[in-house]
Amino acid sequence: MDKILLWDALRARHRSVAFVDMVLRGCSQVMFQNNPLTGLLFFIAIAVGAYGEGLPQVVIGSLLGTVVATLSAAWLVNERETLRAGLYGYNGCLVGTALPTFLQATPFLWVVVIFSGVISVIVTVGLKKLLRTWDVSVLTAPFVLTTWIVLLASYPFGQLHHIGLPAPAMPSNYELADSYPGMLPIITSALHGASQVFLSSNAPEGLLVMLGLAVSSLRAMLLALMAALLAVAAALLIGAAPQPVSSGLYVFSAVLTALALGSVYKPSGWHVLGYIFIGVIFTVLVQGAFNTLLVPLGIPPLTMPFVVTCWLFLIANPNVIPTTQS
Amino acid sequence: MDKILLWDALRARHRSVAFVDMVLRGCSQVMFQNNPLTGLLFFIAIAVGAYGEGLPQVVIGSLLGTVVATLSAAWLVNERETLRAGLYGYNGCLVGTALPTFLQATPFLWVVVIFSGVISVIVTVGLKKLLRTWDVSVLTAPFVLTTWIVLLASYPFGQLHHIGLPAPAMPSNYELADSYPGMLPIITSALHGASQVFLSSNAPEGLLVMLGLAVSSLRAMLLALMAALLAVAAALLIGAAPQPVSSGLYVFSAVLTALALGSVYKPSGWHVLGYIFIGVIFTVLVQGAFNTLLVPLGIPPLTMPFVVTCWLFLIANPNVIPTTQS
Amino acid sequence: MDKILLWDALRARHRSVAFVDMVLRGCSQVMFQNNPLTGLLFFIAIAVGAYGEGLPQVVIGSLLGTVVATLSAAWLVNERETLRAGLYGYNGCLVGTALPTFLQATPFLWVVVIFSGVISVIVTVGLKKLLRTWDVSVLTAPFVLTTWIVLLASYPFGQLHHIGLPAPAMPSNYELADSYPGMLPIITSALHGASQVFLSSNAPEGLLVMLGLAVSSLRAMLLALMAALLAVAAALLIGAAPQPVSSGLYVFSAVLTALALGSVYKPSGWHVLGYIFIGVIFTVLVQGAFNTLLVPLGIPPLTMPFVVTCWLFLIANPNVIPTTQS
Repeated sequence: MDKILLWDALRARHRSVAFVDMVLRGCSQVMFQNNPLTGLLFFIAIAVGAYGEGLPQVVIGSLLGTVVATLSAAWLVNERETLRAGLYGYNGCLVGTALPTFLQATPFLWVVVIFSGVISVIVTVGLKKLLRTWDVSVLTAPFVLTTWIVLLASYPFGQLHHIGLPAPAMPSNYELADSYPGMLPIITSALHGASQVFLSSNAPEGLLVMLGLAVSSLRAMLLALMAALLAVAAALLIGAAPQPVSSGLYVFSAVLTALALGSVYKPSGWHVLGYIFIGVIFTVLVQGAFNTLLVPLGIPPLTMPFVVTCWLFLIANPNVIPTTQS
Repeated sequence: MDKILLWDALRARHRSVAFVDMVLRGCSQVMFQNNPLTGLLFFIAIAVGAYGEGLPQVVIGSLLGTVVATLSAAWLVNERETLRAGLYGYNGCLVGTALPTFLQATPFLWVVVIFSGVISVIVTVGLKKLLRTWDVSVLTAPFVLTTWIVLLASYPFGQLHHIGLPAPAMPSNYELADSYPGMLPIITSALHGASQVFLSSNAPEGLLVMLGLAVSSLRAMLLALMAALLAVAAALLIGAAPQPVSSGLYVFSAVLTALALGSVYKPSGWHVLGYIFIGVIFTVLVQGAFNTLLVPLGIPPLTMPFVVTCWLFLIANPNVIPTTQS
Repeated sequence: MDKILLWDALRARHRSVAFVDMVLRGCSQVMFQNNPLTGLLFFIAIAVGAYGEGLPQVVIGSLLGTVVATLSAAWLVNERETLRAGLYGYNGCLVGTALPTFLQATPFLWVVVIFSGVISVIVTVGLKKLLRTWDVSVLTAPFVLTTWIVLLASYPFGQLHHIGLPAPAMPSNYELADSYPGMLPIITSALHGASQVFLSSNAPEGLLVMLGLAVSSLRAMLLALMAALLAVAAALLIGAAPQPVSSGLYVFSAVLTALALGSVYKPSGWHVLGYIFIGVIFTVLVQGAFNTLLVPLGIPPLTMPFVVTCWLFLIANPNVIPTTQS
């Protein structure tokens, strides 16, 4: 398309455009796309969600995190192609989105966002070498590990005031209410789940996320939508509490699982779809397990259920083709 | 022996017999044996324990888990010999035994058992590739990880009612009572420990387990017996509470450690026996550590103390022969 | 120097002197030095701290732990050079220092110290093989893992009375006091941090530790001093509670990080100093995170924040030279 050619010409000529392109692609890689327009739509989605929750600092954080991570990677790493594709930016983007969501907006917060953006790159490079042995990607593990460290440290450190964290508590049983609150709005829950990838619960944001996926790959958008609906259904079937289901908290990791597995197993057949189906449902189960695991520590699972599930499924079956497996 | 030849002829001719053979071997592999008669005796042992505790669903679960895991492996994996030896079945057997032990017998439970049986195979394949780098076996880690995930998820999910789980609590000190309750019945505790491999505390079941070992390998049975007695003695010496000791809770992992190390280090000498001796005692210590670690989460250690100890001891010393070590 | 030549001649002739040399080097390796005089000064430092806290058993434990670990390694491992350099002794030294610090001095304690000394060697050998894939050292992970297991097991086991462990509790927020208690004695906090490497808070001990470093390498001593001051400053800036800061609890891991990274990245340039700077500050953050993580379990982080940070930084960047990185 002409617009794409124009953009390519611009970024070849101007270093500033090339940098903006890298930052936008960094944001798009949060959902495994390599497309600056997708990144732009995701940033707009974050802004919509941030203003909806009255936390405008979140959108500044997401931009700052992506920029810092991209610059640190340019300093620390010598892989131009990977850098250009935004693959060192997306974890910084998520760190920059998460920290202002959970921590109070003091001036010190921005120091922490910048420091954590740098750390996210070091974690990315370290994990990459660690995982090279089994030929799997780091996914969003650098985001989760970096953010967990800061959130855990916010308990003993007085300058890191958290605002949105659940209070540490012992795991408790959820008992199904006798009167189940009618039908949940399944479509809304699915859209909330799409927006929860960027840590807020906002249907218009979810729509923008889906639109961002669609401009990059219609197949990716359809996979994400199917996975979101399936995750809502699975969570209801297994008896999750209605409130977290409708906030999309059982959905976002499942959506990422479908996108990650779907982007690795390109030629979809029944085998592949069956494997992704099991992966999506397993992600919902793992999400429940992580809730219990982390409730005494007062931190959220973030996207770890997705990371754990995909590492397992990808290492177990790089091709999902039984006949060629050794 | 004639009976063995007859069985081999039958399973070569009939696919159904071949399948039953695989399922029985799957059960026998829980204790590192590759013997259908041992598997049959173990299933009978499980049935004795299950009826003893008033949980007949446990024996159905153990059969169903082994069958599902064996079938899933036939779908996902292309290793006929490993499959025939039951090496993809034993984790499913244990998952199918554990879930009905800890969760209420609703119709939904069986959906979960089938799903978890499939997952146990994916975890087995994934861990196998992960551990290939250090040339150690997955042991019962797929069982423990799959079951932990379901049990942790039983807290937030209302359709997974747990019945036999300890309530989450803070770790507390056990103080030795002034009047220690005389001699504990050491032999009974050891037999309870053998039955705890299948998650119940039942002396006749323990005897059947020992018998199952003996028909496959007298050496394995003697190793298991020695390890069980040593573990009871070590637990008492280090001041464990009498109740868990007599229930066999400090024994089952130690028995598995002795069997696993003993089956790898075939030519037993003093070096090997000394190493296994340290391994059995260390397993008891690790069992105590896991109790503290998991008490805030309200889930049991299962056989993780065994897995951790054996991975460590096997990676550290594949041969237990200092002179040839690099 | 003549004294060094004399010592070398002595240990070449007498096996007992050679053994003492190995034990002293083992103690010096706690801080990455290979120098018997440093080891002697460290043992004196431990003694000063131990008598200061009224726990003379600590100095016996540290000696016993180093001796047991060195002897076990001679039995289990076939690497003469590594053994002579004290690289199988330092984890035993730390285990022997930590256990009498946290557990009551019963006769049974010494059995546990000896057993744990042996285990520390098995963990060292196991971890070494595990980490060979990524070409990083075990650091003090064997000490931490072995000690954690014993301390966790001290809850259910009545013969292991702990005395100095924090009671298990839920994580709580530290709120900055309105009236911050003036200037903390920064130099004293830094020296306390140096002594915390051997688990006590004692300024003269810290001075002896610094002296021990200086006789082996002036560069190492300066790195340690800079890191200690930086860690105190970082902890105050991020709002840590004054008491743990002045006890040196945010310092010791940071000092070890600087020494470990500084000993790997020999030719210091701005790149290297910048990377170590980030590493030291990150260690303080990770220390805060581990405090929250372990508070429900009632065990201390020991040097795990150092281990985690250095593994990450070393795997991510073996050379800290971006241009040669792949």
